[in-house]
Amino acid sequence: MENRQTLINIAVIGYGYWGPRIARNFNSVDGCRVAIICDKNPASLQRARKDFPGVEVTSDPQSVLTSPGIDAVAIVTPVWTHFELAEAALQNGKHVFVEKPFTSTSVQAEQLIELAEKKNLQIMVDHTFLFTGAVRRIRQMVDDGTLGKLYYYDSMRVNLGLFQHDVNVIWDLAPHDLAIVDYLTSSEAQCVTASGCAHFNGHEDVGYITVYYSDRMIAHVNVNWLSPVKVRTTLIGGEKKMLVWNDLEADEKLKLYDKGVAINNGQGVYDLLVSYRSGDMWAPKVEQTEALAAETRYFADCISNNERPFNDGRAGLRIVRLLEAAEKSLKSRGVPVDL
Amino acid sequence: MENRQTLINIAVIGYGYWGPRIARNFNSVDGCRVAIICDKNPASLQRARKDFPGVEVTSDPQSVLTSPGIDAVAIVTPVWTHFELAEAALQNGKHVFVEKPFTSTSVQAEQLIELAEKKNLQIMVDHTFLFTGAVRRIRQMVDDGTLGKLYYYDSMRVNLGLFQHDVNVIWDLAPHDLAIVDYLTSSEAQCVTASGCAHFNGHEDVGYITVYYSDRMIAHVNVNWLSPVKVRTTLIGGEKKMLVWNDLEADEKLKLYDKGVAINNGQGVYDLLVSYRSGDMWAPKVEQTEALAAETRYFADCISNNERPFNDGRAGLRIVRLLEAAEKSLKSRGVPVDL
Amino acid sequence: MENRQTLINIAVIGYGYWGPRIARNFNSVDGCRVAIICDKNPASLQRARKDFPGVEVTSDPQSVLTSPGIDAVAIVTPVWTHFELAEAALQNGKHVFVEKPFTSTSVQAEQLIELAEKKNLQIMVDHTFLFTGAVRRIRQMVDDGTLGKLYYYDSMRVNLGLFQHDVNVIWDLAPHDLAIVDYLTSSEAQCVTASGCAHFNGHEDVGYITVYYSDRMIAHVNVNWLSPVKVRTTLIGGEKKMLVWNDLEADEKLKLYDKGVAINNGQGVYDLLVSYRSGDMWAPKVEQTEALAAETRYFADCISNNERPFNDGRAGLRIVRLLEAAEKSLKSRGVPVDL
Amino acid sequence: MENRQTLINIAVIGYGYWGPRIARNFNSVDGCRVAIICDKNPASLQRARKDFPGVEVTSDPQSVLTSPGIDAVAIVTPVWTHFELAEAALQNGKHVFVEKPFTSTSVQAEQLIELAEKKNLQIMVDHTFLFTGAVRRIRQMVDDGTLGKLYYYDSMRVNLGLFQHDVNVIWDLAPHDLAIVDYLTSSEAQCVTASGCAHFNGHEDVGYITVYYSDRMIAHVNVNWLSPVKVRTTLIGGEKKMLVWNDLEADEKLKLYDKGVAINNGQGVYDLLVSYRSGDMWAPKVEQTEALAAETRYFADCISNNERPFNDGRAGLRIVRLLEAAEKSLKSRGVPVDL
Repeated sequence: MENRQTLINIAVIGYGYWGPRIARNFNSVDGCRVAIICDKNPASLQRARKDFPGVEVTSDPQSVLTSPGIDAVAIVTPVWTHFELAEAALQNGKHVFVEKPFTSTSVQAEQLIELAEKKNLQIMVDHTFLFTGAVRRIRQMVDDGTLGKLYYYDSMRVNLGLFQHDVNVIWDLAPHDLAIVDYLTSSEAQCVTASGCAHFNGHEDVGYITVYYSDRMIAHVNVNWLSPVKVRTTLIGGEKKMLVWNDLEADEKLKLYDKGVAINNGQGVYDLLVSYRSGDMWAPKVEQTEALAAETRYFADCISNNERPFNDGRAGLRIVRLLEAAEKSLKSRGVPVDL
Repeated sequence: MENRQTLINIAVIGYGYWGPRIARNFNSVDGCRVAIICDKNPASLQRARKDFPGVEVTSDPQSVLTSPGIDAVAIVTPVWTHFELAEAALQNGKHVFVEKPFTSTSVQAEQLIELAEKKNLQIMVDHTFLFTGAVRRIRQMVDDGTLGKLYYYDSMRVNLGLFQHDVNVIWDLAPHDLAIVDYLTSSEAQCVTASGCAHFNGHEDVGYITVYYSDRMIAHVNVNWLSPVKVRTTLIGGEKKMLVWNDLEADEKLKLYDKGVAINNGQGVYDLLVSYRSGDMWAPKVEQTEALAAETRYFADCISNNERPFNDGRAGLRIVRLLEAAEKSLKSRGVPVDL
Repeated sequence: MENRQTLINIAVIGYGYWGPRIARNFNSVDGCRVAIICDKNPASLQRARKDFPGVEVTSDPQSVLTSPGIDAVAIVTPVWTHFELAEAALQNGKHVFVEKPFTSTSVQAEQLIELAEKKNLQIMVDHTFLFTGAVRRIRQMVDDGTLGKLYYYDSMRVNLGLFQHDVNVIWDLAPHDLAIVDYLTSSEAQCVTASGCAHFNGHEDVGYITVYYSDRMIAHVNVNWLSPVKVRTTLIGGEKKMLVWNDLEADEKLKLYDKGVAINNGQGVYDLLVSYRSGDMWAPKVEQTEALAAETRYFADCISNNERPFNDGRAGLRIVRLLEAAEKSLKSRGVPVDL
Repeated sequence: MENRQTLINIAVIGYGYWGPRIARNFNSVDGCRVAIICDKNPASLQRARKDFPGVEVTSDPQSVLTSPGIDAVAIVTPVWTHFELAEAALQNGKHVFVEKPFTSTSVQAEQLIELAEKKNLQIMVDHTFLFTGAVRRIRQMVDDGTLGKLYYYDSMRVNLGLFQHDVNVIWDLAPHDLAIVDYLTSSEAQCVTASGCAHFNGHEDVGYITVYYSDRMIAHVNVNWLSPVKVRTTLIGGEKKMLVWNDLEADEKLKLYDKGVAINNGQGVYDLLVSYRSGDMWAPKVEQTEALAAETRYFADCISNNERPFNDGRAGLRIVRLLEAAEKSLKSRGVPVDL
């Protein structure tokens, strides 16, 4: 990363649970500074004043979006507000960093992508997990052939709460895994089936998604706001090796198994020949850097170098399309939805 | 259990992986004895001779099924042979103990049930897990109201292999969980959706099943023959308490959490009021008795007392119907199948 | 805690690894403020300026110790400097908060205690663990009789590094456990034996301490700077119940076992009758409050109310005596040292 | 292993907890058979009759020891009986397989060794752990230099009961670890210090042993009959790599860490330069064969080939000397005992 010649002024809209972390990380990026923080909630603004003594705060997003001194806007608000805020930011010539999921609908996502291209501005969707040491290490093991062809990705992402007001558990938790699979595999998502249940008259609090990919790759995501224990465990089966990723482990997040199976079909009905392989396990060291620090730095680099990030609007759109399909399937108790 | 006046003579058909355990357990039941062991494989018969020095062995099932000295037949063979063997046994006046899943089709199961009733004979389907200390303890916590209304049952039952020749992973592993849910809940199964993937041109080796029950209860079963690690973990969410059952733990298989959530809908769009409860965890002592010992003893008791077991043909039929529905849904990539 | 009428001005001497946490916590206590931060290292002072923009910093401890505006001094420096700094602070009428271990020798500790009493000033030794939710919960279970008479306390406190320049692993890590046992039991320490090894020509990096208490209570502490894994596990055996405390667990730090043994001596040589009890396990919820926040608040309260803290100089002295005895025994490869 | 020309007839004396396993394993060894089983307890003999239908049983050890048809005697009785039985067996020309610890005193051990040499008979002491896949794999990593020079061996071997009538917890549990260290290291044991406590007027139920070896190698063994949980964990620190061996893990018993520390002493008091290394973790596959099967086969081979086993009387004597020293130190609360 070069030294940036001009300072990038960032506005942060939304200072609730995640906004303070976004602001703190952007402010730590060399060549960046948080210039305005905006939130409708007076208590949040009060907190922002304490956290960033010299920084302007406001409850009026319009003034932020039209402020000539702002280069980029970080949108850290509920998903149903993303489109309107991002559209106004782009219209006013500002780059956009937006929380996942990108938008509420794929149509909105397409419009923002088109607008950004017309204005030559960058959109980055905050798929934070793609910047963790664990996911980067897994990607490396896909790229260098360690895992071999991927058979399945199976993730369990459950805990107690937090219940969201505006979305169900799938829109809340599944974007993480859908974005990770999108990042890991070159196979194409073909079809989604989803099921789940709402126990409190509102949004689903338990959800299960299966995505069929090309080349017999399958992904499954289990999300749940009603679990007594927190689980963040993913199994990844490859032709050559298999992987367990437990993100709650402090030290050994990834375990790579020299295990597998080879099957040769014989001629008779009972001639299925299966051979099993079982060998060592290996826990590669995973970088401990904070993902959000890397991601905010990358955003600043992309702006400085006028490069499109890999987690751009199109990446965000692919995840929104999967979520739309999952939602549609969920409402019909599993009818598969083609992509 | 009373002292049985007359000895129950058991024939065991099938002496492969599971048959020796069935035979050993039946032979240990007071008032029972294994009288014949039958298998087509000479090596299995050789093993049977060594394990049961005095007992008759044969490779001909017909002679077993028609033998006048046999009171009951334990059928421990592949599922596609169950119907024919069980029908012949019942026709010849013998009680039937049969491996799970009961039959290949629900029509077969119905015919066997009808035949057994006509002949006043007992059928017991070997849903062994229902006799474990863990499942019995969970059932007790359902019955006494400890858990409250059940929200969900979510099970992960994965490991490497053993690949079956004649069925997919759902028919192999899911009967355990489907039978356990059937035993635990009084809600009614309404609809099944399933997904999965076959990576080796044959039967599915990865499968996901969701069963919708009445009263907003939902069950999910994740089965996989391609996992690098063995997992046997079930989450059960109840209105009052939540449970984690890890069957691979030696000592603390069940953990009961005083955790939960209460939601009151307010009036405005944002008035969803959620209150969380988080308290102690409690691991009740679980009986360590061997499940199969209890089950075989119970079969003998049912025969002696002419009582129908709770894991009878009808229980077996309910599970076969779920499996049929899951299979049908799986083939269509998730289209829900009503029951 | 009442509202304090006058502000307590704290000086923090030592702003290395632990100093920033001490300063931050004191500054958050209602009625307290950090007024000066002192460190010999310019980089540390630079960091202090950034962390506490308005606060005076200095590299000269003398100016701090004689400053008329300072009410209390927090000494967060290597142990060999504690005595000199604490003595000067007390001589100048300042209360003292001092890192563990209190002093390098028991003679020094006695002198400071005497001086503080003469001057009517408070000394608090930073045995932080006594303010954790876990230790407070264990103490409660001792006090209310849940555990019954204590049989043993057995702690493993090992990890890789950090090697200290001035003390061995026993002076570095064992004070935690020795202070915890001192806090939990009313039995009296009678005798210490210790062993260990220095692998790098310097201070011992592996150490084992046994303390014999009255009433057949025994404590054992295993400390190690050369362990590949971090372990913070303590077993506590009581007459009625037994406890496992794993401080690295996020949620279930304490596990209480309804297990035990009762032995009645019969008459013959083989008449030892042992009965075992094995029942439920119970993980009580443990308060998640930060220990240092509670401790610094308590220090301010003790000053305001002119009350002696329970973790006062005498408590610090008891631990220094145990460390001195352990050191002496260690040098002789285990010869027991009476207290 | 060659085919043995003549059958080795084994007598098993002692058919309590461990005897049946010894008998079963010897009977499975090619070229061996259990010819007599002896126990004073009628219930044990009854059990032996059931387990070995055709085998002679007796309550009279003398008849066994003088029986001309017996080639070797397996002594599976309390330690205080070992000497008398082994001596008689050797006098009568029989090889001896004897439970650990070898004898109650080192003098007894020396006498048996001398007698066996005079008679050209083999003694094997049942240090079963030396035949486990885990210990053999660790030994391999010592031999091939993977671990580098050993710094320490630190074992925790605790659980609830079983209380022994005739020995304390050190004689019961510590022989395992002392034999393992003896097998792993070429350093020489120099000195032992031990501490512990008896809570029930009898034998110590909690014990801690430190053994100082040459070359700054140290071993520590923590044994406890009063622990609420079973722990079988050993840390091994080496100059190049470090190891955690958790014997209760089903699959990943050994974890090898690429972690370590290098220290260069500088010139000033603060010039201790420490560099830490932290890399991957690796769990080598461990053979799952039953240790006792390998050991009994090895005994038969040693007899057939007239070779002295590595776990011979001298190995047993080394462990008895360590136990004697530990016992002496324990009684004096830690006074070190030279070897």
